[in-house]
Amino acid sequence: MGIINGLDILLKNKCETLPSIDMDENYELSVSGSKSNTLALLTSDSVWGILRGLESFSQLLYASVKGNMIFINETYIEDYPRYTHRGLLIDTSRHYLPLKTIKLILEGMEYNKLNVLHWHITDDESFPYQSRKFPELSDKGAYHPEMFIYTQNDILKIIRYATQRGIRVIPEFDTPGHTRSWGEGRPELLTVCDSSRDGTNFYGPINPSNSFVFSFMEEFFKEIKELFPERYMHLGGDEVSFECWKANKDVNSFMRKMNITGDYAALEGYYIQRLLNIVNKLNISPVVWEEVFNNGVKLPTSTVVQVWIEPWKKTVQAATNRSHGVLLSSCWYLDHLATGGDWINFYKCEPSSFAGTPVQKKLVIGGEACMWGEVVNRFNIIPRIFPRVSAVAEVLWSTIKSRDLKTMQSVSARLEEHTCRMNKRGISAQPPNGAGFCI
Amino acid sequence: MGIINGLDILLKNKCETLPSIDMDENYELSVSGSKSNTLALLTSDSVWGILRGLESFSQLLYASVKGNMIFINETYIEDYPRYTHRGLLIDTSRHYLPLKTIKLILEGMEYNKLNVLHWHITDDESFPYQSRKFPELSDKGAYHPEMFIYTQNDILKIIRYATQRGIRVIPEFDTPGHTRSWGEGRPELLTVCDSSRDGTNFYGPINPSNSFVFSFMEEFFKEIKELFPERYMHLGGDEVSFECWKANKDVNSFMRKMNITGDYAALEGYYIQRLLNIVNKLNISPVVWEEVFNNGVKLPTSTVVQVWIEPWKKTVQAATNRSHGVLLSSCWYLDHLATGGDWINFYKCEPSSFAGTPVQKKLVIGGEACMWGEVVNRFNIIPRIFPRVSAVAEVLWSTIKSRDLKTMQSVSARLEEHTCRMNKRGISAQPPNGAGFCI
Repeated sequence: MGIINGLDILLKNKCETLPSIDMDENYELSVSGSKSNTLALLTSDSVWGILRGLESFSQLLYASVKGNMIFINETYIEDYPRYTHRGLLIDTSRHYLPLKTIKLILEGMEYNKLNVLHWHITDDESFPYQSRKFPELSDKGAYHPEMFIYTQNDILKIIRYATQRGIRVIPEFDTPGHTRSWGEGRPELLTVCDSSRDGTNFYGPINPSNSFVFSFMEEFFKEIKELFPERYMHLGGDEVSFECWKANKDVNSFMRKMNITGDYAALEGYYIQRLLNIVNKLNISPVVWEEVFNNGVKLPTSTVVQVWIEPWKKTVQAATNRSHGVLLSSCWYLDHLATGGDWINFYKCEPSSFAGTPVQKKLVIGGEACMWGEVVNRFNIIPRIFPRVSAVAEVLWSTIKSRDLKTMQSVSARLEEHTCRMNKRGISAQPPNGAGFCI
Repeated sequence: MGIINGLDILLKNKCETLPSIDMDENYELSVSGSKSNTLALLTSDSVWGILRGLESFSQLLYASVKGNMIFINETYIEDYPRYTHRGLLIDTSRHYLPLKTIKLILEGMEYNKLNVLHWHITDDESFPYQSRKFPELSDKGAYHPEMFIYTQNDILKIIRYATQRGIRVIPEFDTPGHTRSWGEGRPELLTVCDSSRDGTNFYGPINPSNSFVFSFMEEFFKEIKELFPERYMHLGGDEVSFECWKANKDVNSFMRKMNITGDYAALEGYYIQRLLNIVNKLNISPVVWEEVFNNGVKLPTSTVVQVWIEPWKKTVQAATNRSHGVLLSSCWYLDHLATGGDWINFYKCEPSSFAGTPVQKKLVIGGEACMWGEVVNRFNIIPRIFPRVSAVAEVLWSTIKSRDLKTMQSVSARLEEHTCRMNKRGISAQPPNGAGFCI
């Protein structure tokens, strides 16, 4: 037993300034010594490892009963993440989230060693991204053109806040479906669904038969690439309804020309293919939702497939079999609710539990908890995310062996403790299990 | 069209100082006149009607597009509640709620014309009530003897805050079950379950074979009666486990003496009967959970039965058939969660939809939404309650005819509007339906 005067930090390599898919989060932490000679040392090859180690160090400290002393046990830790991509999806289209809320979420993510904010920034309901080149998109497509937008500067603030915490920010501009809000400012991007029944027109997905769409997307993603330092971007591609394409004459005559008459999955494939070519030229590495893969779109193997549909095992098997990197989300939908709590189910979900070779297992680069925005606003999103996401975070960081999958008692106790810790740090996490309190 | 300079308020009778089961909440509100002669008049026989009318008046106001003018349409309203008891249960035993949170809940209740706070103040998990006569109960039974208690003064503050809003505060000190926390300070109140299997003793419900229990309860409820001005008190009586009584020798020999050998429901009945005698002497009107009635305890008809078990119709039928006043809660458990929301189910629940005579229907004096505390703390309780409780509040206030039970579209739209209104007034209500925003 001795007194620690501080934590020595040894960063072995140059300090990187941007977290990336390749970032090294390994660290070593040792607290040792005798009364006269104590040492607390945190070592890492990278600043990201230092950040993770500092988080662990802070969690190892505990107060004396009277609260006037802080203790730490002797320890030696070699720690590193099981998966490189440990993410949380937030959705700022269904409900706008103030910067303050997003920053709090980032703080909470750091406390759980999560390292990717998947920012589903636009969707049918609103377009809060203020584009430099196409300001009409948010002028007309946001819930409010001034109050409910993210300016370029806002986004830079979020990226900076995330970067300081070793968190990557992957933006998602979901196309060709989930794009109704794009049409407010730029109706020519969307397919007009010719509804012969009642004579009114309404808008469907992006219109791939309109070549203007692709020059627009090229300009748009150029801007996004300039704004976001992250190499990966999410292109969406989920839940594309074919009904509207079916009803549009231009789309169908285009498909005849392309020799894909009646094959709307092929049309979606055509769109995605051209979009992939665009982002490829921009040196953007793409992530897509699983439908793009399921529909047989020819994807370069460098495209990461995010699997969200239950059951998920066959899809993960198929995508890794085709050499795609895979992100798992199916079992971690935070918008799904269950009386009595559900973190146990999140915790039990094992990303490697599909039939595949060791090579395939390695292609699962991680996973993401998804906090879709329909039923969360700035008032309930933080307690809805935390501490439920902590269970996901542990699955993605820790080895299977270290996970207590039988009784869950030790996990449960740690989750109680961690919830109180988050509360004290300003994260309004909800109770994980049941009755209780934090001192 | 004209300009209103204010709202004239006409209170016809003397201003009452305490809301009660008999309070009159009827009011008339008229806004009428020409450009030169406009009148906004709120009339009621009682201050409680004035409060409800002010709430309605405030909800009828709307801002001009530019936000620089406030409008109200010409209107004439005669309004009164369908049910006299429109309550919300909060549970401060499973999680302690700060006064600030309870006050916010009371504010939100007023915005929904709810008029009873059912304060389930103690339970197994903790005893936050600081008794004057028995301070050891919270000293040892609270989660923390100083931080997590309600002093006499705290409770007076809550009662005052509620009274100003026309809200009654009905305390519940649940016995003979749900009393583990009483045993921390006063173990002699509880039944020792003689566990022959492993030789350790543990505590069960209140021990009715111990005559000290009744003198204690008399002193305790005297204090409660002095503190709470409300005539009604909730005595609990739910979910009493008989296993511990079965295992206790003293209890069983007492039962032999009483000629009720083996009939534990009769023992519960004996306890409740004596408790009812005590509160009766104190001029307290009792409310009990339905088990007390279901177990055949002979209850004076003045005892109100709160029905919480699903399905509820037969119980309500039986209790009203025995001339009991009934409170319905079964369909309004706010701690039950459902993906995609559940207010529609709350709204569809119709308290009169049981087989009974008009006299029986009239015996349903109202209902309560129950926000049990296991999974809510101060961080998520407000969005968990609001706006879901608004659906219950409307069922309890409005006539069936005025309720849109077919499409739900008008309810849904009003709920959106009301959620934004509550947000603006500082109640962090969650989204009622799905994607959206408040300007």
